[in-house]
Amino acid sequence: MSESVQFGVAIVGCGTVGGAAAQLLTRDREVLAGRCAPAVVLRYVVDVNFDHARSLGLDEALFCTDIQKVLDDKDVHVVVELIGGQTIARDVMEKALRAGKHVVTANKALLAHAGAELYALARRQNVSIAFEASCAGGIPIIRALTGGLIANRLDALYGIVNGTCNFILTEMTTAGRSYADVLAEAQKAGLAEADPTLDVSGEDSAHKLAILASLAFGRKIDYDAIPVEGIDTLELCDVAFGQQLGYVVKLLAIASRQDDGLSLRVRPAFISKEHPLAWVSGPFNAVSVYGHATGHTMYYGRGAGGKPTASAVAADILSLAMGAWQNQFAQLKLWPDLSEKAEQLPIEAVQSRYYLRITCQDAPGVFGQIAAILGKHEISITSVLQQEPHSASAGGVPVIITTHHAREGNVRNAVAEIDALNVVKGKSVCIGIVEEYPEEL
Amino acid sequence: MSESVQFGVAIVGCGTVGGAAAQLLTRDREVLAGRCAPAVVLRYVVDVNFDHARSLGLDEALFCTDIQKVLDDKDVHVVVELIGGQTIARDVMEKALRAGKHVVTANKALLAHAGAELYALARRQNVSIAFEASCAGGIPIIRALTGGLIANRLDALYGIVNGTCNFILTEMTTAGRSYADVLAEAQKAGLAEADPTLDVSGEDSAHKLAILASLAFGRKIDYDAIPVEGIDTLELCDVAFGQQLGYVVKLLAIASRQDDGLSLRVRPAFISKEHPLAWVSGPFNAVSVYGHATGHTMYYGRGAGGKPTASAVAADILSLAMGAWQNQFAQLKLWPDLSEKAEQLPIEAVQSRYYLRITCQDAPGVFGQIAAILGKHEISITSVLQQEPHSASAGGVPVIITTHHAREGNVRNAVAEIDALNVVKGKSVCIGIVEEYPEEL
Repeated sequence: MSESVQFGVAIVGCGTVGGAAAQLLTRDREVLAGRCAPAVVLRYVVDVNFDHARSLGLDEALFCTDIQKVLDDKDVHVVVELIGGQTIARDVMEKALRAGKHVVTANKALLAHAGAELYALARRQNVSIAFEASCAGGIPIIRALTGGLIANRLDALYGIVNGTCNFILTEMTTAGRSYADVLAEAQKAGLAEADPTLDVSGEDSAHKLAILASLAFGRKIDYDAIPVEGIDTLELCDVAFGQQLGYVVKLLAIASRQDDGLSLRVRPAFISKEHPLAWVSGPFNAVSVYGHATGHTMYYGRGAGGKPTASAVAADILSLAMGAWQNQFAQLKLWPDLSEKAEQLPIEAVQSRYYLRITCQDAPGVFGQIAAILGKHEISITSVLQQEPHSASAGGVPVIITTHHAREGNVRNAVAEIDALNVVKGKSVCIGIVEEYPEEL
Repeated sequence: MSESVQFGVAIVGCGTVGGAAAQLLTRDREVLAGRCAPAVVLRYVVDVNFDHARSLGLDEALFCTDIQKVLDDKDVHVVVELIGGQTIARDVMEKALRAGKHVVTANKALLAHAGAELYALARRQNVSIAFEASCAGGIPIIRALTGGLIANRLDALYGIVNGTCNFILTEMTTAGRSYADVLAEAQKAGLAEADPTLDVSGEDSAHKLAILASLAFGRKIDYDAIPVEGIDTLELCDVAFGQQLGYVVKLLAIASRQDDGLSLRVRPAFISKEHPLAWVSGPFNAVSVYGHATGHTMYYGRGAGGKPTASAVAADILSLAMGAWQNQFAQLKLWPDLSEKAEQLPIEAVQSRYYLRITCQDAPGVFGQIAAILGKHEISITSVLQQEPHSASAGGVPVIITTHHAREGNVRNAVAEIDALNVVKGKSVCIGIVEEYPEEL
């Protein structure tokens, strides 16, 4: 494509991200002017309602309700799908690919479920899909995995990839406020949706994990096989006990290589205050990646919001305009449509350290019974925290136990046995402790 | 290049990084096998002495002392310059480019001084120079600046880009040990060179800053116009006073956009304990980049060492094998050989907050005199820390003042006037306080 040629863009879906992307390509045109050889030109903003687009002052001449017109326009080279969801979005994306357009998308749910099929379709049509905006907003983590880190065997990836959850957990940790209390505030401040389920259930993080892990390990990931636990049942007392032990609780998207396969999981986990991920606070995101040659690298930034996500969308557009992303998409062999299925381990096979909170009667011999059950299940204790009973301990006293590495299946069996003891009240709490992944340097 | 074609590599200079890169391409071949379309094959290891290469168990059939043989071999597509320095390295690099080979290099000093000329030469020869390894070792910061962040106007970049200095400063901060003491230990542990000047003087950081700033701002940087101050004169008491005020001292490579031009500088500076860069400890590196759309993003990892740097070298090689880097190099317009000269501000024009330590006689009216001088030079005080005098204060008591934003020229003039006061003993210490760059989101 010569310098005089223009690279035409259609944005489909003009919400928060679509609007910000349209602004970046028009109002901020001078930032991008001359930055890459073919000039990038926004030709259409497609939606069914243009209230938001108008409120941003976008040029009404761009507004279009007819996707077919866009698909038929040979001066449109890339369709930017920012509709979200898996129905209309998928339909638009497939039509665009079939019409020979590149696709840029932020749609993590769709790529987590159907990425491999869509990439394969794009490949058959000799076009590309770019999706930097699908994971961790403005942080260029897709490019790190498909660019700077490609000479590594990646062994582990730990991500804080949901800003809503991280905001809530940061407040619970630093201000000692309950989950419900902080969630209500976050909703008022626009940091959490009215229906926060997708975020707080861990599902959104799992979508991103599926995408990131597929590239980190060069494997096809089965989204439905990822065990997911959210932050909605996390109790404040566990956050506080963890702090006493030197840990911070984070909703982590974890992918790690074990001898027997790959473990992918999303859940609240304790991480040492010394680990860089423990420092990531408020709505920020970060992803730690461990490579056999690089060791630990981490990528930090704003994981959501119109402008940061639009930055990723626009980087993808420019990269397609330059022909760069097409090259990665064609020549790199990490894409899930080209790779084998991952051997994903069930949650029982996870090897980790654990935090257990067991509520016991304050009676002689109780700890001995618990320790005996743990020992029987090959679980070694690293620390015990039991405080002096006080007047309110009629309902039992909490005993906090941390363990050495153990198999999660063993821990679950042990906890079930412990909870069946007469001297144990209620259900014990079990939270994984994520350790710094050992570097091989 | 079809899949059956091989991409031939010659590594020139088999030291720590060259040896690790050769190992990554041979011993770890299975990691890279099938990762990208043209297979990458190491054809030569060029050096004058192969003791190190032999100690790594590299295949002796690769060893070559004749660079001309490499340049004449049409099956060599990329020459990896890992000699270092600016004489032989430059000669090798120019010869390789003239012979039509791509060049991969980790040579920050050479690129800081002569990058624009070398890029122009490469462009004339229709080949590319890739240099991810020149800045911050295994952290893919060059790719962030030329990839994921390209849709931003970048406004500031703060880097901790020298692991030796960061190790020394971390020890001074956390263990309260003197510079000389920690340096000696670092030398014993191999974390500092026998002659540490290049590192502790700030020069190595300035080399990296010149490269990073040229890409961040799309401008040609005059290396010699970068004001550089090292950590070798930093006193422990200032580290401690800073901590009392909530700051950590780091050797920062700073590039920031001011209304009147670009300010580039390298020096020890205070940064708030709340800023992610304050958390970066030991030999780790990190670079914070502020974009008008992304806001703050940060990149963290090991900034030196054989394997992390080899990871960057090999990523560049793979990227060239795929044709990806050539595309960036040709189509992106941020390269210093294609861009205007930066308007680099002199140090006097820097706008910053400052920490001042003034040693005064413990006498009435002294503070009033100091405050009057600061006021005259348009410097507002934000905090004062003066401790009760004790028996050892015959030589004067330290008064610690922090200021609002001021022009550095004014601060320097004020300090000169203050130091000329009869009641002031010795030379005052002035350290910049770097604040979180304001995001525009």
